[in-house]
Amino acid sequence: MSHPGATASDRHRVVIIGSGFGGLNAAQALKKADVDIKLIARTTHHLFQPLLYQVATGIISEGEIAPPTRLILRKQRNAQVLLGDVTHVDLEKQTVDSILLGHTYSTPYDTLILAAGAGQSYFGNDHFAEWAPGMKSIDDALELRGRILGAFEQAERSSDPERRKKLLTFVVVGAGPTGVEMAGQIQELADQTLKGSFRHIDPTEAHVILLDAAPAVLPPMGEKLGLKAKARLEKMGVEIQLNAMVTDVDRNGITVKDKDGTLRRIESACKVWSAGVQASPLGRDLAAQSDTEIDRAGRVKVNPDLSIPGHPNVFVIGDMAFVDGVPGMAQGAIQGGKYVANIIKTEAKAREHGTIPKPRAPFKYFDKGSMATVSKWNAVAKVGKFEFSGFFAWLAWLGLHLIYLVGFKTKIATLLSWAVTFLSRQRGQLTITEQQAYARTRIEELEEIAASVQETEKAAS
Amino acid sequence: MSHPGATASDRHRVVIIGSGFGGLNAAQALKKADVDIKLIARTTHHLFQPLLYQVATGIISEGEIAPPTRLILRKQRNAQVLLGDVTHVDLEKQTVDSILLGHTYSTPYDTLILAAGAGQSYFGNDHFAEWAPGMKSIDDALELRGRILGAFEQAERSSDPERRKKLLTFVVVGAGPTGVEMAGQIQELADQTLKGSFRHIDPTEAHVILLDAAPAVLPPMGEKLGLKAKARLEKMGVEIQLNAMVTDVDRNGITVKDKDGTLRRIESACKVWSAGVQASPLGRDLAAQSDTEIDRAGRVKVNPDLSIPGHPNVFVIGDMAFVDGVPGMAQGAIQGGKYVANIIKTEAKAREHGTIPKPRAPFKYFDKGSMATVSKWNAVAKVGKFEFSGFFAWLAWLGLHLIYLVGFKTKIATLLSWAVTFLSRQRGQLTITEQQAYARTRIEELEEIAASVQETEKAAS
Repeated sequence: MSHPGATASDRHRVVIIGSGFGGLNAAQALKKADVDIKLIARTTHHLFQPLLYQVATGIISEGEIAPPTRLILRKQRNAQVLLGDVTHVDLEKQTVDSILLGHTYSTPYDTLILAAGAGQSYFGNDHFAEWAPGMKSIDDALELRGRILGAFEQAERSSDPERRKKLLTFVVVGAGPTGVEMAGQIQELADQTLKGSFRHIDPTEAHVILLDAAPAVLPPMGEKLGLKAKARLEKMGVEIQLNAMVTDVDRNGITVKDKDGTLRRIESACKVWSAGVQASPLGRDLAAQSDTEIDRAGRVKVNPDLSIPGHPNVFVIGDMAFVDGVPGMAQGAIQGGKYVANIIKTEAKAREHGTIPKPRAPFKYFDKGSMATVSKWNAVAKVGKFEFSGFFAWLAWLGLHLIYLVGFKTKIATLLSWAVTFLSRQRGQLTITEQQAYARTRIEELEEIAASVQETEKAAS
Repeated sequence: MSHPGATASDRHRVVIIGSGFGGLNAAQALKKADVDIKLIARTTHHLFQPLLYQVATGIISEGEIAPPTRLILRKQRNAQVLLGDVTHVDLEKQTVDSILLGHTYSTPYDTLILAAGAGQSYFGNDHFAEWAPGMKSIDDALELRGRILGAFEQAERSSDPERRKKLLTFVVVGAGPTGVEMAGQIQELADQTLKGSFRHIDPTEAHVILLDAAPAVLPPMGEKLGLKAKARLEKMGVEIQLNAMVTDVDRNGITVKDKDGTLRRIESACKVWSAGVQASPLGRDLAAQSDTEIDRAGRVKVNPDLSIPGHPNVFVIGDMAFVDGVPGMAQGAIQGGKYVANIIKTEAKAREHGTIPKPRAPFKYFDKGSMATVSKWNAVAKVGKFEFSGFFAWLAWLGLHLIYLVGFKTKIATLLSWAVTFLSRQRGQLTITEQQAYARTRIEELEEIAASVQETEKAAS
């Protein structure tokens, strides 16, 4: 589509920040555009975040949900993938600064798409993160895999009933889809996969608590489906505590404030945080240089065309953007990415032909519905006014996730992993590394704490 | 099996240290013995070490070669798996001390099997390890995966031709099976899997150097096969440097001393060490308390029955033991484990019946041969006097490795991964985590080094 003789420098330069659903879909939708795309991301992979909980609980490998972005875009000759952590966008100079292992780079753009996503939010209590990791990256998932399985391992060796109880109590904070899926999967892991493999403890005695400050499970899916999911989780053995606000998280447990104001303590070694999100700090960076506003979650309040005030060539999509009526889910990012790519294509063609492009139509989100798996064979789904639950919702979940996974091999491998897990109760990815299991980064600190406690136990078993 | 009414404490207590080929096979061979087994290991998994290089180069996932030991032994009711790092064996008190996240445990034994394996040896230059990790654990493999792929990523962003060359030069030290397999796989990764996925560099220009202080490739396999492997690697593009001794390893490369005494420098960002092994320090621990001797590699010089002098109830097997004529390979450990288990079973029966057991026959190693893959479709194998190479040796390699992999699901998953890689040139496990890619543990140090260098580069691309 390039004119004969056009060089890269002649081309309209599109820089995309982020390789998630938004960034990747924007890049792919620009496949046939006569533009020069640079996609800069912090990770080398495109992460299929909705299945991260399955990596954390040993069902699938990280490779199945995180293929390298550059291999996905290998054949798209107008796109280049660059690894780097974007530290600053300069709206005046039209450059993006990034850093990779101490080397800094500055990349100029004509059009910029910010799709850097969101991280976990601890609502101002960032010290919770150490003892209750979030579920936002492959690293998070592997860290949690190590913590979950590591808790069982430590319990097997302990002769102290209180410590064992603490180690076998798992708390998941936040009863959205990720929290519901994590709680259900930890329970199934304990009851089915690990059953019978310990001699001193019974892993099926593991106690999984799902709690939320809100009064319902899966609030965006409505009362009926929320109650169905709740009932199903309770039947599996998950304890659900609603109207329960976390006020503190430490090494040994969490402190919770109930609706009546009473504070209580849950002793638990392994905590998972899935309670809130905080958009990429790049939103704040934009706000500091323009009339752009951000909301409390750090999301950028975009124009109807997803651009920012005063900068029609700077778009913000996905979890970084606040658009009324668009949920922070994959579909919002995918549709945003395609919408913005379409504007860029249209305007590039107009430039080519020397015509004036049509005014931009505002972004319209098409609600394809939402779903969450509760356990194997069981999911809840909402599409428009229609609500489904149980086995058929689960089948729909299975099919849709397979369709959206990138790559044929990935689909086959994931299907195989699922077959193993759903049919045999085994899980193929329970390996924990020392980096995660004992958190090599944290081990010295832990040893220090432990030494001061000096809880030398006799061999419990 | 157990007498009616016998309690665990009545039973003969067998403690096994290590969950590798030796420890796992010893435990499994004691399945029907009336003994109480505790297997203590530093990792939760049994590692199929011969395929570690495939994890490092993105062919298979860690779960495929490292299933949890406790799930392998789930149905073996006389065995308990315990996670812990063994710090000391007390031969007089007959106890094993171990530590798990700061908690210390002491486990008594009647019979002890040490099968703690070996780590990488840097021949007294432990500071090499930081810049040339070994290939002994899942952590090592994932770290190397991150370094190998990370080097290409950094090269894509660099505008400095010298730095790019350094980043695209990979040095594998040690031309044994692991070194040969790593060198071949890095070359195939660059030439086939990554081909066409970069815009600023050509990954097929990556330069892989395999070097060894010895004058041959794969010395234990004999001259003929060594030359075949060498020729095949060279045809693939691997540069082989023999009689080349590494005298220094640093961040930016290695220093090599050739046979004629000249020193020369190879600039290389990513180095892999597979040059030597050092047995577990527990051998030294035994030597300090008994008449046990250890060799320079830290291996225990065992009696003909694999016990140590003066302690007929303490056995050392696998890579920790030195037995004349037994190579440090899986088969040596497997056969050692089964042999020792057999002694324990025989003597347990004799105790049960109040008879005197037969004197122990010495351990005899049955050489099942050895093999190494050089590239896809190509391997070298030696069984007794017979030597094979090429496609049929590769098929034999494929079949044997599938047979020895633990678990049906693992075999299927691995076969699928291989099909993808060998038939399509794709690889399903190229995901790198931040922990590995940027070595979270090391990043601050690197940033510091980088800041002092202040090589601010313009966007190369």
